[in-house]
Amino acid sequence: MNHASYDAFVQPRSVAIIGASDDGQKTGGRTLRYLDTYGYEGEVHPINPRRASVQGKRAYPDLAAVGRPVDLAIIVTPAEHAVAALEQCVTAEVPAVITITSGFAELGADGAALQRELQAVLRGSATRMLGPNCVGLVSVRAKLAATINTGMDQDRFDLRDGGIAFLTQSGAMGAFVFNMSQTRRVGLGSLISTGNEMDVSFPEMLHALLDDPAVSGVAGYIEGIRDGEAFAGALRHAQEVGKPLAFLKVGRSPLGVEAIASHTGALAGSDAVYSGVFEQYGVTRIAGVEALADWAQMVDLARRPAGDRLSVTTTSGGGGVLVADHCTDLGIRMATWDGEWQRKLADALPEYLSARNPIDMAGTGGNSEALREVLALMGDHPGTDVAMVLIGNLDKEEDPLIQVLHEAHRATSKPLVVVWVGGSGRPVVELTSRGVPAYTDPGRALQALSGLMAAQRAAARPPATRPPIEEGRRERARALLTEARAAGLGVLDEHRAKQLLALYGVPVVQETVATDPDAAAAAAERLGYPVAVKLLADDVAHKSELGGVLLGLSSAGEVAGAAKDMLARLPRPVADGARLLVQPMVAPGLEMLLGIKRDEAFGPVLVVGLGGTWTEVLEDVQLRLPPLSAEDVDDALGALRSARLLGAFRGAPERDRDAVVAAVQGLALLAAELADEIAELDINPLIVGPRGNGAIAVDAVVVPRVACPSSTPEGARP
Amino acid sequence: MNHASYDAFVQPRSVAIIGASDDGQKTGGRTLRYLDTYGYEGEVHPINPRRASVQGKRAYPDLAAVGRPVDLAIIVTPAEHAVAALEQCVTAEVPAVITITSGFAELGADGAALQRELQAVLRGSATRMLGPNCVGLVSVRAKLAATINTGMDQDRFDLRDGGIAFLTQSGAMGAFVFNMSQTRRVGLGSLISTGNEMDVSFPEMLHALLDDPAVSGVAGYIEGIRDGEAFAGALRHAQEVGKPLAFLKVGRSPLGVEAIASHTGALAGSDAVYSGVFEQYGVTRIAGVEALADWAQMVDLARRPAGDRLSVTTTSGGGGVLVADHCTDLGIRMATWDGEWQRKLADALPEYLSARNPIDMAGTGGNSEALREVLALMGDHPGTDVAMVLIGNLDKEEDPLIQVLHEAHRATSKPLVVVWVGGSGRPVVELTSRGVPAYTDPGRALQALSGLMAAQRAAARPPATRPPIEEGRRERARALLTEARAAGLGVLDEHRAKQLLALYGVPVVQETVATDPDAAAAAAERLGYPVAVKLLADDVAHKSELGGVLLGLSSAGEVAGAAKDMLARLPRPVADGARLLVQPMVAPGLEMLLGIKRDEAFGPVLVVGLGGTWTEVLEDVQLRLPPLSAEDVDDALGALRSARLLGAFRGAPERDRDAVVAAVQGLALLAAELADEIAELDINPLIVGPRGNGAIAVDAVVVPRVACPSSTPEGARP
Repeated sequence: MNHASYDAFVQPRSVAIIGASDDGQKTGGRTLRYLDTYGYEGEVHPINPRRASVQGKRAYPDLAAVGRPVDLAIIVTPAEHAVAALEQCVTAEVPAVITITSGFAELGADGAALQRELQAVLRGSATRMLGPNCVGLVSVRAKLAATINTGMDQDRFDLRDGGIAFLTQSGAMGAFVFNMSQTRRVGLGSLISTGNEMDVSFPEMLHALLDDPAVSGVAGYIEGIRDGEAFAGALRHAQEVGKPLAFLKVGRSPLGVEAIASHTGALAGSDAVYSGVFEQYGVTRIAGVEALADWAQMVDLARRPAGDRLSVTTTSGGGGVLVADHCTDLGIRMATWDGEWQRKLADALPEYLSARNPIDMAGTGGNSEALREVLALMGDHPGTDVAMVLIGNLDKEEDPLIQVLHEAHRATSKPLVVVWVGGSGRPVVELTSRGVPAYTDPGRALQALSGLMAAQRAAARPPATRPPIEEGRRERARALLTEARAAGLGVLDEHRAKQLLALYGVPVVQETVATDPDAAAAAAERLGYPVAVKLLADDVAHKSELGGVLLGLSSAGEVAGAAKDMLARLPRPVADGARLLVQPMVAPGLEMLLGIKRDEAFGPVLVVGLGGTWTEVLEDVQLRLPPLSAEDVDDALGALRSARLLGAFRGAPERDRDAVVAAVQGLALLAAELADEIAELDINPLIVGPRGNGAIAVDAVVVPRVACPSSTPEGARP
Repeated sequence: MNHASYDAFVQPRSVAIIGASDDGQKTGGRTLRYLDTYGYEGEVHPINPRRASVQGKRAYPDLAAVGRPVDLAIIVTPAEHAVAALEQCVTAEVPAVITITSGFAELGADGAALQRELQAVLRGSATRMLGPNCVGLVSVRAKLAATINTGMDQDRFDLRDGGIAFLTQSGAMGAFVFNMSQTRRVGLGSLISTGNEMDVSFPEMLHALLDDPAVSGVAGYIEGIRDGEAFAGALRHAQEVGKPLAFLKVGRSPLGVEAIASHTGALAGSDAVYSGVFEQYGVTRIAGVEALADWAQMVDLARRPAGDRLSVTTTSGGGGVLVADHCTDLGIRMATWDGEWQRKLADALPEYLSARNPIDMAGTGGNSEALREVLALMGDHPGTDVAMVLIGNLDKEEDPLIQVLHEAHRATSKPLVVVWVGGSGRPVVELTSRGVPAYTDPGRALQALSGLMAAQRAAARPPATRPPIEEGRRERARALLTEARAAGLGVLDEHRAKQLLALYGVPVVQETVATDPDAAAAAAERLGYPVAVKLLADDVAHKSELGGVLLGLSSAGEVAGAAKDMLARLPRPVADGARLLVQPMVAPGLEMLLGIKRDEAFGPVLVVGLGGTWTEVLEDVQLRLPPLSAEDVDDALGALRSARLLGAFRGAPERDRDAVVAAVQGLALLAAELADEIAELDINPLIVGPRGNGAIAVDAVVVPRVACPSSTPEGARP
């Protein structure tokens, strides 16, 4: 979306409402009413062919009759008139349209047909459209409530502007979260409901929001992304521009996927892929509704922490312990106070309290002057990156405490986070209004803080860039795959698979193809013993199940004999034309599995895990998208629950982690360059030696992709 | 604590305040003021030797001068006068005392000495004491605010009575939670701060609360329990009487443990033991502050669910998906609507909405009449155990919706849970006030619901009872241990260890002790091949490190030869007097480890896990306390992350789970009967065969306990 289109959505100079109704309670009338209620200052043109005025405003029979340029048109007609309404917009060259009207792809085949008509109208024009079947858009800075969300019927809130945009695939959830956040005085500066995403998609709007200097972070509610590549591109963009993202992605569970399928027909996608992608780009994965507002408040208000060391002062020793527990769960460190800083702290505290972090001020923490002194120390202490205050109740001291906290916030460049449990609730709202992040629960505050920290870490790491495609290598790889397809193979044999891997720098075991047992014995003599001899036959992916893997053979006689026996046991069609693969035995090491899977939305996805039964028992794998920097791979390895096995463990030596990283990066390059050619690839095992001794792919299977154009399934989300 | 003492704490007919001050803002005056503010109706006697009246009430120089019986005395004097104050109470035979005064064991050696003086005063008397160093007690039904908690300074709340007692080891956190809950209209009927637990301990008060018919559940904040056995007894009691428990136990992390040590010197104890114990008795482990109030509201208000099948109706399809996700995480099932019930549901919904659960009512959900119809169906539907409503905003429809929800709650015997996101916030408070559990976040509501369900399941399962100690067996076992101790052994040898296990019905491998290699060969001939030969020597716990384990020997010659070589390689002091253990090789199977560890607070704890490196990598063990029913053990096995390996998995057969259960129960019996005799016991491995083929302990180590009286460390929690 270009800047002009984006601006027309969020800061239009003029708005037309097509299908505007005189009844401000009806869907057709509500948007016009909200524009008025919230004080939109641009021109507003109701379009209604049957009325001269609507809600006291001059109405026009159609857009052409307006006779002035319209930046944003909002379609609220019944579905059967939406096509004609959109035609008017295209004709009038309206840059931005929000089709709120529902009754399209979300309703099955008939609706989908109607949506295709809408799509045809838009094709080739410069008009961009949000929706259909969405609740619309609210842009606080433009005082624009272009929505049918009845949550706007709370006259009591003057909307609070702020740097956080909220982008949602569920209109109702979006309305809930927007309303709840505004009530808490959290600065959600915009609410954008994407509906069926017929034209403007979630990733595209996300990308545009990130380019808006008024937006400092984006929160979102996701059911399923159709264009994974565009989504990943937007996430990389967020990392580049250093703007934190947080998504509540539903459909984590089979039950949830079923519910999505039932309510919209949208593709939930593999949840493990989303988890991997979020991890990769430092995106916070939000678990609950209120946690979205918690995060938004933190990102909107908190200063950016320089590190992850937290000091907390509290009136409750028990609360300090709880904070320490939460910090451990969330990977936040507790700051250390020692030497002169500990002495300074001791001077600020009554004698009976010990000077350490968590800083238990007991009853004195409710004294605003005592608190002021400790806050100043936390601001100055070089070992503290984040200052937190945990207090509670204290109804009689609210005002002086609010004042001290507000001043401390202004006086420091570090984030100050306040948690005020119990009491009247007023201090939390008041502090938030004054720009101090304030919460009612320490766990929720720290969860939000950890999201901010993760985004900071991701932004500090340059995103991996895709190296230019090396044509020579790619052509050789394609030739291998074409040859296999030409031979009618559904699966590449082990030898070809390893040739492919070697092209991309993944170390593979040295091996010789032999046509018969005697040739295998001769090859073994050249390679040196012990050797492995494996069946090499077309379309046999699981040769061990056919007895086709012979390990640890230690003489020419043994090789020839065992190979003959193996061939004799095979079913005739397999034995005919079968060859033998002779490899030196690789020294035992840590077994890992690497692979590529194809995701419907995201395309090729890298899979990394430890090998063997346990990986399967625990489903302990990490998924990532190409391209991958070395740091990205290292993080993925660290995220495995079994990561300890890569270090020195129980007498086993530290493993060659660098070699694993290099192999995964090679595989990522392969995945990127051959994205359309590979359906699936498995290296199992990659044997990882002690540090400095490398890692080597001992077996591999490649399933080439049967050519088919990538289809974009139709979907819709009400 | 007997009933009379308990009643004197929570429903005293008369209260004396020793050290009462005329200044209602000071610590000494606050309690007297709160008794007045909250309308305590019994007699109140301020004790102050320097004043004739205090806060307008007649004061007495000492307790004796009151001349009437006092049920509850509250000591708020400075620490140096507390001993004399307690002496007055003992003399006057006051049944219950709350010593709020601080300055005791929580302040190091001097304070501990003063606390010992207090303790000496109490010894032998019938007076029971809470504290010292606590914030006191609030009992809503008695209108008794016997506390210094300044959170009571919110005149705006008339306290709400309810069935949930809140027991806390942190005074400040207790005050925060109590206040926050009351503001939300959650029925915390009492707040009891246990302080240093010099006399009345957390477990003892917990037990007494469970016997109070007005208490339907207990929530607690725990830093560390000193008497684990009493605590476990109280948890078993809760299971028996079917009252749900939930604890926020802090000190989960090393950081948290450090913080506890710093702020109180209390023992945090091994957190893994707490997790196991909570799991065992169906206790909900609470993670955060607000979650405590969430749980309390659910247990206080919700009807008891007959099962775990939830139906949810919502105005947000996206919200329904989120509910399904949360349910999967929490082990709550989604109810199925089919056949006639699906037809009935379809009749109640507009045609464009699909009749299934989650029941997406879209916009019609905001219509109270439409909602009434769906609620009635959820109440009637036999496949629904819990009905949930998820709506949001709807400020203009609040009153009719509240009415419909309240009526639906009254009309059904199933729990109805309301989640109302955003909006004015009034409906949640109003519904709670009317007895309908209502929340602002679906995840928080479902978390609380899952706690209630877990307690229901635990209550449905009779607690394991300790079988009577079988003296003959225990005497034989003790003889074995005494013999080892007499021989100066720090560790029982493998043979003795297995004899001990066999006494308790744990199957052990058949074996013969041989004095020399030739005798070993003869024994092998009798046992049949292949055999294992192991070094049997005093105080060698890890014989494999000395090369003392020879496996898979298959002839007399091999046995004699290998055994001779092994003995020759041993250092002289070990070889002298060493014997040999000859065992038939056990067929390979699933390797598990079972054991007993000693916890400072809880005594002997059973450890169950899968064997091998992975268990260590993942720390995948479960801890439980004896006694254990078969269901208890089965649950513990199911809680292992690697539990799938006990079933048929990847071509391996299903394992003999019953045999594992029997072995663990035998070990639990051993742990209970020999609690004071065993410091540590490890069976590694227990080899588990296919179903019907049993499980057998192949190796075991027992460390007898060096006799020492169990010490009760002094501790304190402000």
